[in-house]
Order: sequence, then C-alpha cells, then structure tokens
Amino acid sequence: MSANQLDKKSEAWSALFSEPMSELVKRYTASVFFDQRLWRADIEGSLAHAEMLAAQGVISADDHAAIQRGMATITQEIESGAFEWKLDLEDVHLNIEARLTQLIGDAGKRLHTGRSRNDQVATDVRLWLRGEIDLIGGLLTDLQKALVDIAEKNAEVILPGFTHLQVAQPVSFGHHMLAYVEMFARDAERFADVRRRTNRLPLGAAALAGTSYPLDRERVARTLGMDGVCQNSLDAVSDRDFAIEFTAAASLAMVHVSRLSEELILWMSQSFGFIDIADRFCTGSSIMPQKKNPDVPELARGKTGRVVGHLMGLITLMKGQPLAYNKDNQEDKEPLFDTVDTLKDTLRIFAEMVGGITVKPEAMERAALKGYATATDLADYLVKQGLPFRDAHEVVAHAVKTAIGLGVDLSELPLATLQGFSPKVGEDVYEVLSLRGSLNARNILGGTAPAQVRAQVARHRARLG
Amino acid sequence: MSANQLDKKSEAWSALFSEPMSELVKRYTASVFFDQRLWRADIEGSLAHAEMLAAQGVISADDHAAIQRGMATITQEIESGAFEWKLDLEDVHLNIEARLTQLIGDAGKRLHTGRSRNDQVATDVRLWLRGEIDLIGGLLTDLQKALVDIAEKNAEVILPGFTHLQVAQPVSFGHHMLAYVEMFARDAERFADVRRRTNRLPLGAAALAGTSYPLDRERVARTLGMDGVCQNSLDAVSDRDFAIEFTAAASLAMVHVSRLSEELILWMSQSFGFIDIADRFCTGSSIMPQKKNPDVPELARGKTGRVVGHLMGLITLMKGQPLAYNKDNQEDKEPLFDTVDTLKDTLRIFAEMVGGITVKPEAMERAALKGYATATDLADYLVKQGLPFRDAHEVVAHAVKTAIGLGVDLSELPLATLQGFSPKVGEDVYEVLSLRGSLNARNILGGTAPAQVRAQVARHRARLG
Amino acid sequence: MSANQLDKKSEAWSALFSEPMSELVKRYTASVFFDQRLWRADIEGSLAHAEMLAAQGVISADDHAAIQRGMATITQEIESGAFEWKLDLEDVHLNIEARLTQLIGDAGKRLHTGRSRNDQVATDVRLWLRGEIDLIGGLLTDLQKALVDIAEKNAEVILPGFTHLQVAQPVSFGHHMLAYVEMFARDAERFADVRRRTNRLPLGAAALAGTSYPLDRERVARTLGMDGVCQNSLDAVSDRDFAIEFTAAASLAMVHVSRLSEELILWMSQSFGFIDIADRFCTGSSIMPQKKNPDVPELARGKTGRVVGHLMGLITLMKGQPLAYNKDNQEDKEPLFDTVDTLKDTLRIFAEMVGGITVKPEAMERAALKGYATATDLADYLVKQGLPFRDAHEVVAHAVKTAIGLGVDLSELPLATLQGFSPKVGEDVYEVLSLRGSLNARNILGGTAPAQVRAQVARHRARLG
Amino acid sequence: MSANQLDKKSEAWSALFSEPMSELVKRYTASVFFDQRLWRADIEGSLAHAEMLAAQGVISADDHAAIQRGMATITQEIESGAFEWKLDLEDVHLNIEARLTQLIGDAGKRLHTGRSRNDQVATDVRLWLRGEIDLIGGLLTDLQKALVDIAEKNAEVILPGFTHLQVAQPVSFGHHMLAYVEMFARDAERFADVRRRTNRLPLGAAALAGTSYPLDRERVARTLGMDGVCQNSLDAVSDRDFAIEFTAAASLAMVHVSRLSEELILWMSQSFGFIDIADRFCTGSSIMPQKKNPDVPELARGKTGRVVGHLMGLITLMKGQPLAYNKDNQEDKEPLFDTVDTLKDTLRIFAEMVGGITVKPEAMERAALKGYATATDLADYLVKQGLPFRDAHEVVAHAVKTAIGLGVDLSELPLATLQGFSPKVGEDVYEVLSLRGSLNARNILGGTAPAQVRAQVARHRARLG
Repeated sequence: MSANQLDKKSEAWSALFSEPMSELVKRYTASVFFDQRLWRADIEGSLAHAEMLAAQGVISADDHAAIQRGMATITQEIESGAFEWKLDLEDVHLNIEARLTQLIGDAGKRLHTGRSRNDQVATDVRLWLRGEIDLIGGLLTDLQKALVDIAEKNAEVILPGFTHLQVAQPVSFGHHMLAYVEMFARDAERFADVRRRTNRLPLGAAALAGTSYPLDRERVARTLGMDGVCQNSLDAVSDRDFAIEFTAAASLAMVHVSRLSEELILWMSQSFGFIDIADRFCTGSSIMPQKKNPDVPELARGKTGRVVGHLMGLITLMKGQPLAYNKDNQEDKEPLFDTVDTLKDTLRIFAEMVGGITVKPEAMERAALKGYATATDLADYLVKQGLPFRDAHEVVAHAVKTAIGLGVDLSELPLATLQGFSPKVGEDVYEVLSLRGSLNARNILGGTAPAQVRAQVARHRARLG
Repeated sequence: MSANQLDKKSEAWSALFSEPMSELVKRYTASVFFDQRLWRADIEGSLAHAEMLAAQGVISADDHAAIQRGMATITQEIESGAFEWKLDLEDVHLNIEARLTQLIGDAGKRLHTGRSRNDQVATDVRLWLRGEIDLIGGLLTDLQKALVDIAEKNAEVILPGFTHLQVAQPVSFGHHMLAYVEMFARDAERFADVRRRTNRLPLGAAALAGTSYPLDRERVARTLGMDGVCQNSLDAVSDRDFAIEFTAAASLAMVHVSRLSEELILWMSQSFGFIDIADRFCTGSSIMPQKKNPDVPELARGKTGRVVGHLMGLITLMKGQPLAYNKDNQEDKEPLFDTVDTLKDTLRIFAEMVGGITVKPEAMERAALKGYATATDLADYLVKQGLPFRDAHEVVAHAVKTAIGLGVDLSELPLATLQGFSPKVGEDVYEVLSLRGSLNARNILGGTAPAQVRAQVARHRARLG
Repeated sequence: MSANQLDKKSEAWSALFSEPMSELVKRYTASVFFDQRLWRADIEGSLAHAEMLAAQGVISADDHAAIQRGMATITQEIESGAFEWKLDLEDVHLNIEARLTQLIGDAGKRLHTGRSRNDQVATDVRLWLRGEIDLIGGLLTDLQKALVDIAEKNAEVILPGFTHLQVAQPVSFGHHMLAYVEMFARDAERFADVRRRTNRLPLGAAALAGTSYPLDRERVARTLGMDGVCQNSLDAVSDRDFAIEFTAAASLAMVHVSRLSEELILWMSQSFGFIDIADRFCTGSSIMPQKKNPDVPELARGKTGRVVGHLMGLITLMKGQPLAYNKDNQEDKEPLFDTVDTLKDTLRIFAEMVGGITVKPEAMERAALKGYATATDLADYLVKQGLPFRDAHEVVAHAVKTAIGLGVDLSELPLATLQGFSPKVGEDVYEVLSLRGSLNARNILGGTAPAQVRAQVARHRARLG
Repeated sequence: MSANQLDKKSEAWSALFSEPMSELVKRYTASVFFDQRLWRADIEGSLAHAEMLAAQGVISADDHAAIQRGMATITQEIESGAFEWKLDLEDVHLNIEARLTQLIGDAGKRLHTGRSRNDQVATDVRLWLRGEIDLIGGLLTDLQKALVDIAEKNAEVILPGFTHLQVAQPVSFGHHMLAYVEMFARDAERFADVRRRTNRLPLGAAALAGTSYPLDRERVARTLGMDGVCQNSLDAVSDRDFAIEFTAAASLAMVHVSRLSEELILWMSQSFGFIDIADRFCTGSSIMPQKKNPDVPELARGKTGRVVGHLMGLITLMKGQPLAYNKDNQEDKEPLFDTVDTLKDTLRIFAEMVGGITVKPEAMERAALKGYATATDLADYLVKQGLPFRDAHEVVAHAVKTAIGLGVDLSELPLATLQGFSPKVGEDVYEVLSLRGSLNARNILGGTAPAQVRAQVARHRARLG
C-alpha cells in the first residue's frame, strides 16, 4: 500500500500548495464538527457507489468486499463513540475515507473513483433529509391525532369564535381544534412534495461535469431507493432547492405552531381562563411564587423566528451564485440541521402537550355570552322572513346598540322591543338567539355544528390510519 | 326597494357606530386601490354563489337573473373604465356590491346571503392566483424552450466549467444552459403543487363558522373549476398558506434567475468576454460614452431581493395570529400582487433575452485553456493504469505545479517530463489532455458530453411539447 | 443650440447602440414612475452643483442664471401637474435635464458636467431621506406626547402586569404606557444616528472615480446643509448602507408599534375589556351586525411584516455586489419609499388614536385581582422578617396553593392560616397584600409607583419640549 | 441553613406544581447549555448587585463578604472546568445561584433579593454584548489597517474600475481598497451607536414592576461602568432592541465582507487573474488536482446569509409580543451568540488574509485597456474645448463605435480620424487618452488620483491610531 495523501493534510492540501492551511482558516472552513451527523448517509452512499463500481468492473470484487468490511468497522466505531473525528480532515467525507484507507489500504483510495465531494455531499444531504422528512411525517400524524382526539371530546363545547379578537359567533371547541388539523395536514402534503424533489440522485455528477468512468447512475439510485437521477451534472452539484423548499415548508409548519401557541397562551391567561396546561409543561418564576407559565407554547412561538431566519439565511446564501459548486454552499448545513431539530422537537412536544390540556367549558361559554355572538343569527332570521340581507344587517345593528345601552344580551330583549326594530320578528326568534341554537344551525360542510365536527373527526381518523 | 345602507358609509359604518371613520383611517385601512385587480374573480365567485343560491331556493330565479344582468353591466363598466371606484366603500367587494344594488335593487342586497367578506376575499384571491399560476407556467415553458434552443445550438461549444469560480473542467455551453432548464422545470413542478393547494374553495365558511343557509359548497366548487372545498370554516377564512407557499416558490424561481443573471453579467464583462447581449436589452451611461450595460440581468438579480422581501413580509404577517380572520391579513395582497408582476415580467423578458445572446466560442475555449482544466482527466488516466485515485490525484498535483512553473499547459509538457511523475504515462496521454477529449469522455447520463446534451435536448423538447 | 441627444432616446440609447431598447425592457428598467418623487431633491442638488460649477469657473454666470431660471420653471410645472414625465427618458434625472435643455438650450447640456447619474441619484435619495427622517422625528415626538398624556391621566390606574401573559404584579396603566415612550424615544435616537450617516455628499464622485473638473465638493455640501462629503468615490456611488440602516430602524419602530397593537387588540377583546377605541378608528363586519373591530392596530401589526420584508429585500439586494454601481441598486427605491410611507402613516394614525382610547379602570383592577398579583409582596414581607428570599418564595407558593384550593385571594386568607405557613406573619401583612399597597411600594427609579410615573412624565415633557 | 428549594427542582418547580417537568420539556426549555457563556457577566452583575444591597443595608456586610467569597470560588471552578452545569437548574442564573447557596448557605439565598431572572438576564446579555462590541471594534480597526496598508502600497496600480461589471474608468487599486475602509469605518460608527443603547442597566426592574426594596440602581450602573439605567421597568425586562440593532449592524458589516469577497473571488478567477491569495487561505479539490480555491471569501460570502437570517429571526421573534417578559425572548441568545462568533471570526480572518493578497499590476492594467476606459476623458476634453457635455458624449460614442469596428483603442485612432468626429480635437488629446493620464486627472477630494489616495491613507492612519 502506498502512503496516504490524506495523512499529510496538516502539512499542505496537496503537492500544489506551498504552505499548510492557517489554523484560523482550518477552523473557519472545517465542517466536520457539524456535518458528522451525515455519517450514516455518507456510508450508505459510499456502499451503493462501491457496489456499482464493482458491478461495472471499475473496481474489483476484492476491493468491494474490503470496502464493505471497512465500512462495517467504521459504522461500529462511530456508533460506539470510538471514531476519532479530525479537524485536519475537514469534513465527514475525508474523515471516513481516511479511516477506510487506514483500515483496508489501497482499496479505500479507489472508492472515490468517478466521484467528487461535490456530488457526494449533495447525495448525503438528500439521503439524510429524506429520512428526516419521513420522521417529520410521523410526528405530524401524531400531532394531528392528538388534535382529533381533543376535538372529538369537545365537539359540543361552545367557544366564542373570534374575528379581530372580537367575539364573532359561537363555535365548537372541537371545530376550532380541527382547523389546526387542516393546517398540519397541508404541511404533511407539502413535505411529501419536498420529498419527491429531494429524493433524486446527484452522484455521478462528479465535480461538475460528470465522469469518464462508465458509472451506472440509475443502479445507484435504485440501490438507495431514490426516485430518479439528477439529469444535469452542473445542476446536480449546485442545486440546494430542496434545502430551501424544505425550510420554507418547515417555516409554514412553525407559523401554524405559532398560531396555536398564541391561542393557548391567550386561553390560559386569567382574563380568558379557557384552558389549563398540565404542570409538566409549565415553569414558575424565580421571584413571583404564584406563577405557572405556559413556557412551551411561548418558546415554540419564539422558535418560529429561528426557523424563518434559517429560511432567509438559505435564500440569501444561494442568491446570485454562479455555477457550479461554490464553498458558500457549505453554509447550507447548519441552518438545515437546526430547522430539522427545532421542528421535530416542537412537533413531538406539541403532540404530547395537547393531551395535557384541560378544557373549561363554562368559562368558554360565559365568554361567548359577552359579545352578541348571535347577532348574525338574528339577521339570518330576518332574511328568512323576507328582508334583504343588507337591510337585516342594519336592523340588527340597531338592536345591538339598544342591548348595549341596556347592558343585556339580545336574547334578553323583550319581544316587543325586538318587534320595534322589525315587525317580522316572532316568538320563535329566541331559538336562534341561543348559543347552542346558533352552533347547531351552522350545519353545512365545513361548518361548526357538532354533527359536522363529528363527520370531520371520522374523515381524519380514516385518513390518519 | 329599500334604502341602501352601503350608500351611507361615509356617515357611519353601521347603526352601531357613533361617528364616521376618520379620513386618515379610511385611507390607512382601505384596500380598493390595490384589490380592485381582483374584480373579475370577485364577479366570477359571486355569480357561482348566486347560481347555487338559486338552485338551493335561497334566492328566486328572478333575483338570480337580475344579478347576472347587473354583473354583466358592471363587467362592461369596469372593462371600459367607466366604473367609479370609491374609497368610502373600502374594497373591491363592497364597491361591486353597492353598484349592483344601485343597478338591480333588493336582489343585489340578497347576493351576500350566507357569505361574508372573509370567505369572499379568500375565494377571490385563490381564483385570481390560480389564473396567474397558469400564466406563469406558460412563461416558464417559454423560458425553458428558449434555453433548450440555445443549448442545442451550442452543444459542441466548450466553456470552462467553474467551481469556486476557478477553472475546473471543460463543459459544453449547451450543457451549462440545460442546468437552468432543470431549475426552471423544478419551479414549474413547485407551482403545480401550489396550484393544487390554492384551488380549494373557502366560500361557505362565511365569517368564520359556516352558515345556517343550506348552501351547496361542492356545487360552487364545481362551477368554479376548483379541486375541492376547504373542510374547516375557521381555517378557510384564516389560511394564507397558499400565498406564502406561492411566494416561496417565486423566490426560488427568482434565485434561479439571479444565478443566471450573475453568469450573464460575468460572461459579458470584458475580462470574460464570453457573450454579448443584444443592444435592445442594454443601456448606456449618462457620463461614459463607451458603456453598454447588461441592465436586464442586473435588475433581475436585484428584483430577487424584492420577492424574497415579500416572502419574509408574508411570513412575519401570519406569525402568531390567533384564529380566525384578522385585519392583518389585508396586508397579504400587495406583496402577492407585486410578486406575481415581478416574476411574470422577469420570466417574459428572460425568455426574449436568451434569444438575444451572442455566444463567442473562441473566447470561451481560450479561457478553458487557462486553468489546467484536464488535470482530472490525467488523474483518471493514471487510475485506469492501476493507480489508486488518491495517489493519481497527488501525482497530477506535482505535474500541475511543474507546468505552472514553466508557464505551459499540461498538454504542452513533454512525454518524458510526464513520465517523470509516473512511469505509467504513455503516448496516448495527450488524447485525454485535450479539451474536446475531456468533454467527449464525460459521456454518462447527466454528463457534459455533447451526445448527452443532445439526448437531454430531445427529452426536454418532448416534455415541453 | 445643437440638437439634443436626449430627444432621440426612443431611437437608440446613443450612437453606440444599433437598435432601440425593446418596449418590454423599457418598462422593466424605467424608474421614472416611482423615482419622480425625488424631483425636488434632484433640482435642489442640481442647483447646488450649478452654483459651484459657476463659482469654480466651469460654467459661465449666464449659464448658471439660465439653469436657475429653467429650474424655476420646471418646479412650477411639476407642482402644477403640467410637467410631462416620459418613459423614454427612463428616470427623474433625464426627464428634468431634457426639459431643462428644451427650455434653456446648451446651458442645460452643461449642467451634467463633472457629474454622473450614479452620484446624482445617490445625492437625491440622501437629500430626500434626510427630509423624511426629520418628518418622522416630529411624528415620533407627537406619538410620545400622546402616550405621555394618557400616562399622566392614568398614573393611579391599576392594570394587571403580565409576564408570560399570566398575571404577575399590579402595575400602573400610566407606567405601562411609558414603556412605549421609552421604545419610541430609542427609535428617535436611532433615526438621529441614521441621519448623520445619510447626510453626507456623494456628488463629485461622478460615475465612480471622481472627475477631472475642479469641483469644490465641500462647497456643495455646505450649500445643501450636509455634514460632510463621502471620502471615496467608489464607495460614494455604491453605498446603500443608509437605506438599509434606515429600514432597520423603521423595522424596529414597527416592531414597537406591533407590540402596542397586540396589547390594544387584547385589551379591547371582550374577555379583557380593559379599553375601548373610538369608533372612528374601527370598522364593522359585512355579515356580523354587532362587530366593532380594532382595524387600525391590526393593520399596523400586519404592516410590520411589510417593512421587515423591505429590510430583507434591501439586504438581499446588496449582498455580494461588486463595486461600483450596478443596476441592481435601482431596486433600492421602492422598498425605501414604501417604508417611509408606511411608517409615517402608522405613526400619525397612532398619535391620533392614542387620544381616542377610553380606559376602563374597574375592569383592569378586577382582572388584577384574579392572579395572586401580590404574592411577591408577601415573599418580600417575609424577607423583611428575616427569611432568605428563596425560602420566602417557597412559603408563598404553599400559601397560593391553599388559596387556589379555597378559591380566594391571598388577602382573603385568615391570619391564622397565613401564620400556619410562617409564624413571622403579623397583622400588618394585609397592607402589603392589597393591589394599591403593592403598586405604591415599587417606588424606585423606573418602578411602577405612581410617584415614579409622575416623575417620568415630567422628565419626558422636559425632553419632548 | 434551611433546605435549598433549588435542589428539589427535579421533583417540582415549586410547591405550586403537582408534577415534575417532563423530560422533553426540560430539554426543550432549558438554556443552560448555551447561556452558560454568560457566566462571567452573570457573576459580575451579581457582585455589583450584592455590593449595593449591602451598601443599602438590605443584606449584611457578612452576607456580602460570603457572596464575594462564594463567587470567587465559582469563578475558579468554571475557569478550571470543574463546575458542574445541571440541566435541572435550567439556566446559567440558577446554576450559579444554587452552587453559591451550596457553598455559603443562606447568604446565597439572599442574593436574589429585589431581583428577578427577567432583569438579571437582560443585564447579563447587555454586559456580555458590550464586551463583544469592544472586541469587534478592535477587529474592525485591524481590518481597516490591513486595507490601508495594501492601499498605500498600491496607490499607483491601475485597476479597471467597473460599473455594471463593464470597464468604466481606470481607478487606483489602492483607491478601490479604501472604498472598503469607508464601509468598515461606518460599521465601527454603527457599533459605537449600538454600544450606547446597550450599555444601560435593566437591573432593578425585577420581574417587571420594580421592587419594594430600596435599591440604588444608579450605584449599580456606576459599578458596572454603564452609561445609565433603563427608566421603565416594563421596558427594561422586555426590550431586545439592542440585540436586533446589533445584529442589523452585523448584517451590514457582513454585507460589506460579502462584497469584498465577491471581488476577491472574481479577481482570483483565471479570466481576471488580478490577484492571488496565499495558499494558507485556500483549499484544493478532492477530485481536481489543479485546483486552488478561495474558500475563505466564498465561505464569508455564504456566512452573510447566516447573519442576515439571525436578524430576520430576531425581528420575527419580537414582533407582536405583549409586555412584559415572555419566554419567547429566550430565543434571543443563540442567534446573537452565533452572530458575534461569525462576525468576529470573519473579521479576524479577513484582516489576516488581506496581508496575503498578491497584486498583479500587469493583468489589471491589461484589462483596463480593453474597455475604452478613457472615453469619458475624451468627452471631458471636448467640453473643455467648448462643447456642451451632452454633445461631447454623443461625439465620443461615435468614436468608440469606430474604434470597436477597427478593433483598436481610442488612443490608437489617428488624429485625423478623431478630428473627423470633432474639429476641436488637437494633438494634446493623446495625453488624456492614456490610463495614467486619466487616473491622475481625477484629482479631487474622494477621487482616484494617487495623490488623493495618499491623502486618504494619511487621514485613515491618523484616525485609526
């Protein structure tokens, strides 16, 4: 076995370089301390590459066997923590390759045939991200199931529905929870779309132009379970669309989490008092002994900024880059990794926390009685008696004004008073003025009537398995 | 016909309000001067709603006919510029409804039955955006076709392929152009995905909770050619995912444009001198008489920031909003409109401009000769003689160092010199050291060999129709 | 007078160009429809330039007089609306110069001596922005004064202070309002800092390298009231730091507005019911007759996204641009203009709206009684009796737990019960357990005691004049 | 000494909590693994607080001495790595306080008197950031000095000045370098402004409302070297303006770095070939043996996105937060820390790298000869002969067109040909058509003439000390 050039990295990058890399530069440019998390994907990709090289006769069967053996050892070493990651070797790829060559000699040096770190890292990130997308898909399902559970239990619970944070119309608390199921279901759709565009193989693009070795790229794609190969080598090594698209989808998911968080925080505030969150999701104050704070939703709302920041960082990174690979691209990893971690942690904790919410139906119903939530029902009642909607709207505005002046609800106005606004009002008006009457009346597809909520619960259960 | 409450807007919002809106507030909150561009979608949505109301017996056939008649008149008025948009009427919806009621009386007031501006505006924006997505799809096809044309014509032209903006390996100029076809093809995929999630019907969600009228939402969806209905009323009125997702896709498309722009600007710079852009896409300088500047790609590169800014703005807008509709959401329109305009203008002008590019093959080839672009080919040659790749890499580094010292290309080193680095070098080495030899050798799927370029051209032509 | 080359723009940019600009490109690259708002700064800058050219003997006194006369006419024409802006003339600079030459002949053509549009536009934007910063300074003062007024009136009003939106400790409503005065005061500081860096003169940098005419740049700076000249011509024409720094300051100001908005919206929600906002700042609902919505704060909260988006856009624009001027920079204007407009409108409307807030002290005090807001006071009481703070904290946690169980406030627990938690409790404990006692006790610099609030009001009044 | 409640954290937050925090939540909400970097500021702040408590008689002299002793031990433990950071204790504050109480008993528990973690963390971050700003100031000075050095050495070197990346006019390479000195000087100004607003004391705001202990906040501010105290307790604990303003200033500094990087990358590209960067700042390719890549500027350009992303994250974080402290704010730290690290590393490495640049004057001058860089000089020459500038501009455009046709420079056109364009041309025209003539002619303040460059160098040296 010949000497290993990778062992001399600390002296000079290659024979072409007259001096070693400055220590400062080494630390500034090295990625091994964050990209080592790609190790499993790196080995998986290398094994698929080696298998193909052997099948194509580019390397011998013996070399292939040695590579497999060496990689098994390395896998064990990394899993056990025995593997020594070296800054001098820059990144996960050279670290693993150098160790492989230590273990198996020249066969290790042959692994990189027809390959470059440019297509290798693109492959690693895609493989790794594909796995993470699948995990996120599972977490989104868990969260949706938790929301469907609480929705079903509270289908009949009346919550004041708000627009502009002003009491608007009574809605079912279950219905409200299902709004978030819709959002997270869309997120799952989006991640599935991102997965399609992530699961394509760059390997074979080599540095930027393809290679003169007779590689069988379709074979590698099949081995790795990918949907296809990147059709242009320049694009293959420079494309980071999938990272941006993933982070955009993650940002939207976090925006949904932030909206839910905002509501949980509001609802747990004493002035609302609609819910309690179990103690295990809260913390106290170092100074105020009475405090129980909804830390988890607050922090999740804050972490939305973090993920959005990563999205902006990644877009700024790619803007205006000429083809093909530039070192700028190394900066794609940390934001992507942190986005994945943040999203997974948040989804997992929310799925758990939703089960720890105590609903307080009386407080909700009391609040719903405060804002003339059935005014629209009165207008609709008048329309059914023949008034054009716009006229009915104006009649009810007068009635509400009177009720406010008297400090009573619409349902507490005497019939004579109501008839003063419109002679079309009859005894039956009081039915439509009750919260429950209003709730049950909205019995159309997508509406808040408990019957609709239960139908949606059934639909979601079937969908989520 | 009864008096029209909308005519009294300038006095007070409704009977409930004790004073008119302040002039300052009116201007601050009004949207009519930008949302009037939704008028056609607004009318289309209203007609579908009215048709369904009539079919369900909520309004009479006469009312329905009157609404159709009135809307036809309004369409004509807007198209001819005769329609008078009023600030007092806040937005496109109330402007059209007020005019309708002027024209047809009480039937106009009945149109809003079972509907709110909350679900109406969501429907309008989705309908409008769907149309724009289809236009953008067409423009992306045009741009791809223009790129495929120039790629085909230049399949054999040798360009220095760069990584780190350092000469890396020779690539076909056609191959380079096809990298952008891949990017714009992915953009088209993404817009198709956004379209699916945009093309769902919010109408029927009313203000936030659904309605007590027996609406047939599926019927309206069918009439409007939508793929389905939004399944939760709260989500229907508050969801702006589609706007964010669209703007994220547009940002990526603009990032691709910015990369192409960067390259066009570089290539047109005298030090590269690889291309010329037709005069009709350039401007001069007010002070320097010799200047011909590539304004279009520069401006397009700049406009990337604009679209990315809109994405950031929209995400910030939605973060932390409680359900259901909040006035914040009105701010979704201008960024979305400007994103659509910017993207469409840019794609259209790029499709045209690509045809106005003059390629200068000699300059490209001269540049490719400067940076030892065939060094990898020499390494690959040695590997084929049995050296492990890593060793071959180091041998060639020595050879390059020597050539730099002598101020010659690798292909200009005498055989003896080359054999000094490795005895495995034979006469045939000079074949692999030529640019064209290198180019032709990369003849694998996705590689830069002209044969591959032509195969990709054929694939794209079939795909783009 | 010789023919005017600017009149032939529609044929070709200059003699160097073989074809006219494409119509599409003309619209894509023209800025005149948005940069015409710079006209007054453009003329002011031109007059200062001409005055100096004359003083330096570069142009004659007659030419100078003609330029002054011509600019007076143009000023009148623009003010009266008679000026015809032409797309063919690209921007505000060429439009004005072409008209000047029409009016005064060759003298007009001499104005551009020693100048380029690159330094001209940089000067125009800085002059214009300086004026806007001064207007914004005034609006920030108005808003602070309005907040100080409401703070003074409500110094004694007890509001539940929240952390984590959980009741924490009683605070003065006036104190709470003064927190926003601090924020807007910092904004004013920041804008003053931006003004310093904006108010420097690029003129004289010409296209990028300075000029061979004997310009007196310091003289022009003095004439224009600028603090100094840009010391490097390349930097002068390419620097857009001031636009980014301004937009960053504006983003922070809008973040402050968004926080105030969030609170106004919460406080006006029926569950809080702490304030009312005058009808003239609210709107109703097209479907729900009882609604009065706080549109202004909601929209302002939304517009935060708009300004933040512009900041992101501007940064993305400048990232990675080589020196000196690139056409990308034209994209600096629309985001900057819209940021200025949005901020000014928002500050103006908020200054007005703050005066339209009705405070409801009973509702605030009732809410403050809900969350054991004086628990810290009890802990502090125990510390004063000798307990270490951490131990006192734990004792009070037990007391609160008991009070929650009994459904009473701490102040409603019998002395014996309190003494059960700590024998150190005496009769005097009930004084510290009252809201007002707690409020008055926080009588240190920056604290919430009404005495402190009044001291701060006095400080602010002195500061704001 | 009584039992320490902090030791029981793993059981429940306080007596008020019925269950321990979930493990998942503990990890999600804990900050100790990143906020421990604040430890020195935390101790410094605590010591100043304790000193004041003793001076005010709130704690005894013995307690004060014990606290000083304990903190000295803790300082030693942390510096030596012996300190054990515990997840259960959430953050740096509780970790240090718990250890203090272990070491010194009840006195440790008294330290937190009149303080909350809300004002404590705000103080810590400000103290820490102030120190980092001072370090950054030093690094900015180093970088400016390195740029001034290279500028002085290359004052006479002719570089083609570009606008639109098209050759515009000859500039001094030194002048070009000084453009960046201007930018980094502005950055230093901005950081000084941020420092003023950072260096104010929140301590004494306690949880949100101030405290009932007779704290002397001005004394603490003096002890800590702060410029003043935060004047409103609610603002003091919720304000993160300084973090956003710092990150905005850092973003601008990184934008400047990105522009310099873009130019270094361009100039090192073979087609330009204007400079070389020392090997110790470059890396090679794993596949292409001839490569020497400018990794440092590429990576720095990429890291711009990272910092910009943090800015966007922080703004998103704060948008719409109600007063006073919310847990969201904990998310301010990681982006701030990473911004500081990234900026410091980048400035340090750039200051070093600038000294490792080899300038290639011949290549620069050769490139300057390619684009008719003296065309403006010819126009200026004609103006001095009496032509209006606009006419001169058009005459030169014709001359350039002719020269392009002939494939020669303007200075190579025969006198007769030049006179054909304008009879005013004389023999002396060839002086202004030379690159050096053009360079020397731009001898006004801020211009590119070497005399001006040297004057600026002197000014900067005086300024930078």
